[in-house]
Amino acid sequence: MRPLTGYFFEDYQIGQKFVHSTPRTLTGGDVALYIGLTGARQPSHCAKTVATALGYTDSPVDDLLVFHIAFGKTVPDVSYNAVANLGYADCRFLQPVYVGDTLRCESEVTGLKQNSNGKTGVVYVRSNAYNQDNALVLTWARWVMISKRDAATAAPDAVLPMLPKSVAADALSIPAFLTPRGLTEAATGSGRFWEGYAVNEIIDHPAGMTLDETDHTLATKLYQNTARVHFDLHHMKDSRFGRRLVYGGHVISACRALSYDGLENVISIAAINGGSHLNPTFAGDTLYAKSVVIEKSALRDDLGALRVRLLGIKNAAPSLIDATNPELPENVVLDLDYTLLMPRK
Amino acid sequence: MRPLTGYFFEDYQIGQKFVHSTPRTLTGGDVALYIGLTGARQPSHCAKTVATALGYTDSPVDDLLVFHIAFGKTVPDVSYNAVANLGYADCRFLQPVYVGDTLRCESEVTGLKQNSNGKTGVVYVRSNAYNQDNALVLTWARWVMISKRDAATAAPDAVLPMLPKSVAADALSIPAFLTPRGLTEAATGSGRFWEGYAVNEIIDHPAGMTLDETDHTLATKLYQNTARVHFDLHHMKDSRFGRRLVYGGHVISACRALSYDGLENVISIAAINGGSHLNPTFAGDTLYAKSVVIEKSALRDDLGALRVRLLGIKNAAPSLIDATNPELPENVVLDLDYTLLMPRK
Amino acid sequence: MRPLTGYFFEDYQIGQKFVHSTPRTLTGGDVALYIGLTGARQPSHCAKTVATALGYTDSPVDDLLVFHIAFGKTVPDVSYNAVANLGYADCRFLQPVYVGDTLRCESEVTGLKQNSNGKTGVVYVRSNAYNQDNALVLTWARWVMISKRDAATAAPDAVLPMLPKSVAADALSIPAFLTPRGLTEAATGSGRFWEGYAVNEIIDHPAGMTLDETDHTLATKLYQNTARVHFDLHHMKDSRFGRRLVYGGHVISACRALSYDGLENVISIAAINGGSHLNPTFAGDTLYAKSVVIEKSALRDDLGALRVRLLGIKNAAPSLIDATNPELPENVVLDLDYTLLMPRK
Repeated sequence: MRPLTGYFFEDYQIGQKFVHSTPRTLTGGDVALYIGLTGARQPSHCAKTVATALGYTDSPVDDLLVFHIAFGKTVPDVSYNAVANLGYADCRFLQPVYVGDTLRCESEVTGLKQNSNGKTGVVYVRSNAYNQDNALVLTWARWVMISKRDAATAAPDAVLPMLPKSVAADALSIPAFLTPRGLTEAATGSGRFWEGYAVNEIIDHPAGMTLDETDHTLATKLYQNTARVHFDLHHMKDSRFGRRLVYGGHVISACRALSYDGLENVISIAAINGGSHLNPTFAGDTLYAKSVVIEKSALRDDLGALRVRLLGIKNAAPSLIDATNPELPENVVLDLDYTLLMPRK
Repeated sequence: MRPLTGYFFEDYQIGQKFVHSTPRTLTGGDVALYIGLTGARQPSHCAKTVATALGYTDSPVDDLLVFHIAFGKTVPDVSYNAVANLGYADCRFLQPVYVGDTLRCESEVTGLKQNSNGKTGVVYVRSNAYNQDNALVLTWARWVMISKRDAATAAPDAVLPMLPKSVAADALSIPAFLTPRGLTEAATGSGRFWEGYAVNEIIDHPAGMTLDETDHTLATKLYQNTARVHFDLHHMKDSRFGRRLVYGGHVISACRALSYDGLENVISIAAINGGSHLNPTFAGDTLYAKSVVIEKSALRDDLGALRVRLLGIKNAAPSLIDATNPELPENVVLDLDYTLLMPRK
Repeated sequence: MRPLTGYFFEDYQIGQKFVHSTPRTLTGGDVALYIGLTGARQPSHCAKTVATALGYTDSPVDDLLVFHIAFGKTVPDVSYNAVANLGYADCRFLQPVYVGDTLRCESEVTGLKQNSNGKTGVVYVRSNAYNQDNALVLTWARWVMISKRDAATAAPDAVLPMLPKSVAADALSIPAFLTPRGLTEAATGSGRFWEGYAVNEIIDHPAGMTLDETDHTLATKLYQNTARVHFDLHHMKDSRFGRRLVYGGHVISACRALSYDGLENVISIAAINGGSHLNPTFAGDTLYAKSVVIEKSALRDDLGALRVRLLGIKNAAPSLIDATNPELPENVVLDLDYTLLMPRK
C-alpha cells in the first residue's frame, strides 16, 4: 500500500506494476472547463456537427484533456516526490474517448538510474490508460527525477528502456471510420490543409495567454493531479522558486490552444514523440507558441500526418526565438515534438 | 482566408459576408461554469422543474451565455483588431437554445465609416447565430472601431446602416408554447410581476461582485473569444491601460446577475435595444447594478415586456449614481437598454 | 416578500417558514467544476464504474456539493445579514442525489436568542432539501448571528432548540441497495477499510492547498450563495477584515478533499454532527487537514461508520497542531465532527 508521503527512488524496482487509483468518468463539465481554462477551439472537440462529419459518433474529448486526466492518475504512485518531470516519449493516442467513458490507468517501471550525486535517481515508466471496456486508449513513457529517502542506500543496477525517437507513421492509430474531408474551412476558418504545409516551415502563432494562479490550479485539480508543487504555497515558499509551479501539462495545453491560428485543420493528436519542460512557468507569465513543421507523412489518400515541434515561450514574441539555435533562451518553457492528423484535399 | 493577424479596416467592404469558424455544442458544463462565473440565479435557466412549468422542454441556456458564445465566433473576423467595441443594436433572441444544440454564426458588413484621424474606422456588422437545424436563434447588429493597416489608404464611401432605436414590441419573438404563469414566487423569491413595476421606477440592486483576473479570462476563453486585450498581459503592458481589459460581455453578465434581486420574475431577455461600454473594467473592480424601467408593453393576457436600462457601476454604490444625468461619471462602465419578458398575473 | 436588503434579527419568529427560491438541477458541469475547485478524488463521485459496483445507479453527486447547493438556497432568507455562521448540527444525508435531480429547499425558525449587547441575535433554523420527487435528501440545523435593524426593539423570548450532540448510528440513512465491498483498493489506492482504523487515531494528511480569490468566489457563486462578505471587496474594504472572506463551506470542501490520503475508502458522508468555523480564511492561505477518529460503529456485516473530527488548518503543518488542546491556535479555521461510511472487509 502506498505510503501517505509517497514513494521514493529506492522504492521502485524494474518490472514493478501499479494499478492507479481514482478511475474517472468524463463529463461535459470536464470538456467545458477545459475550454474555459485553455481557450481550445479545435472544432472536432467542441462541435458535435463537426465531429460527426468526421465520422465520430460524438465529439471526442480533447486528446490533451484525456492525457492530463490519465497522467493525473499516475502522479500519486509515480511522481509524488518528483524533483522534475524530465521527459515524455512514445505517447500514442489509440482510440477516441467520449463523454461518459471511464478512464483508469496502470504503469510499469521500465528503467532506473541513480544520479551521480547519490541523492536522486531517474525512474522510467510506461503508463497505459484504459476505458470502461478495457480498451487501451492511450499509452506513454515518461521519466522523472525522484528523491531518495536515504542517500546512503545502494544504487540499483542502471537499466534504461528502449524508447523510439519518434512514433513511426505505421505505429499511429488511425480510426478506420475517419472521414477527414468532413473537416471544412467553414468549420475551422482556414482552407489550408496537409498539402499546404512545408517541412521546415515556421509558424509564429499570434495569440498570447497570461496564466494566473487559479487557471493552473483549477486545471491541475480538475486532472486530480496531486503533485504538491502546484498547490501548496506554504510549502513552496521555502523552495528555490518561492512560489507555486505551473503544471507542465497545462503549459502544453495552453500552447496547443495558442497554436490554433496557423494549424486550424488538425483533426487530432496522433502521438507525442517527445517533449521536455525546459524552464518553469509561474502565474503572471504570458505564454506564446511557435511551431516548426519537421516531417510530413501521407497516411491515406485523404489523410496526412504533420510532425510538428511546438515551442512554448514565456513573455516574448515567438518571432524573437530562433528555433534552430541548439541553446534555447530561458524564455522557452516547452519543447514538444508531436504528430498531428490533418485532411488531404 | 483570414490572415493570422486578423483583418484591418481597409479589408472590409459593404455586403462582405463571413461564415465564422468553430461551431459549438453547448453542454451542461457551459451552463454550470456560467453560473459559477456570474452567480446567475434566474431559475428558468438552472431548474428543469421551473423551465418545464414555463412550457420549455428543458432549461433553456441563459440568453447571455448564448449571446457570448455566438459573439465569440465573430471576434476573429470582426473585432480581432478592434480598438473599441462601440455599440450594439437590434439584438433579438428568437428561439430558445438547449444543452446539446450546436451554434454557428455568420455576419455581413452593413456599414463603414473612416474616422477623421485617418487611422481608424468604424465597421458595422449584422450577425446571425443558427442552431444545428439552421434555425435562426439570435440576431444582432454591432459596430466596432478598427485600426487601419496603413493610414495612407483612401477612405471608403461612408455607409451607415438603418438601425432601430429599440426593438418594437411586435418584433419580439414570443415562444407560442410559453406559459408565463408557471413562474411562481416560490421559484423566484418574489411575488412582484409585470403589473408591479412602474415606468421611471429605479432599482438600486443591493449586491456587488468583485472581478478577479481568472473570472473574466475564464469566461472569455469559455466563449472562445480571442480578442487579445483580454488575455495577453505581456502585450497589454505597453497599452494605455497597462493591464488586461475585462471583456465587456462579462460585465453585462455580471451586472445582469447582480440585478436579480429586484427583477426576480424575468423569464428571459427578448431583446437588447442598444448598449455601450462607457469605461473599462479591470480585475479588482467591484461591479454594482442599477435598473431603470423605461417602458412597459402588454404582450399577451399573461405576459408583459419591461424595457429596462441597466447601468453597470464600478466601485460605487448604485444609489450614488444619478441615472438622469446625461453626463454619467467614470464609475459607470455599462449603459444597456434591454427588453425583458415577465408574467402578468 | 423578502426585502431587497434581507431580513434582520427582529424579522424572525419561532415557527416561521421559508420556501427558498432558485431550485437547481444538478449537471455534470457542477460535478466537474467541484472537482476542479477542490481536487476531490472520492471515486464513488467521479467514476460511474465504482458507483455502480457500490450499488448506485450512477455516480452520486458529492455530498458536500449537495450540501453547498442546498445551503446556498437558504442564504437570502436566513443569513444575508449574518455577522457570523455559528454552527451546524444534526445534518443527515438521507438519499443519494444524481446528475439531473432538481433540489429545492425549505427552512423553519426553531430558536431565537438576542445577544446581551442588544445589537445582534442568534437565529436557529432547521433546513430541508428535497428532490424533484419531493423526497427529503438532506436535513440540517444551523445557527447564525444576525444584526438587528434597530437596537431599540425589544428582545424576543429566548427559545433554544433541542439538538443532538451527534447523529446516533440508528438515525443514519443507509441505502438498502448499498454493496460496500464493491469499493476496492484498486479504485481508491488503499487497502485500509473500517477495521483498519482505531478510535483516537490521528491522521496528519500530507497535502496542502492554497486558496486564491477566484477559487472561493467561483465555488460560492456556483452554489448561488449570495452572502456579500464573499464577493464584494468594495464593501469589505471597510470591514474589520479589509478583504473578502472565504465561504466556510468551501473550507470544509477543501479540507475534506485534502483528507483523502489517509481516508481513501470512505463511501459517503452520512452525517455532520457539528461544526464551527473558528477563524476566517482568506485568499492566499494554504489549507491543511488533520483527522481524529472519535468513534466507530458497526452498521452491517459489510459496513461501518467512522465518526471523525476534521480540523482545517491554515499555513501550518497538521503535525504542529495538538488536537487534544482545548485552546486551539488561530491557525485552526475549522473544527468539524462528521460520520463517514466505510466498507468492512
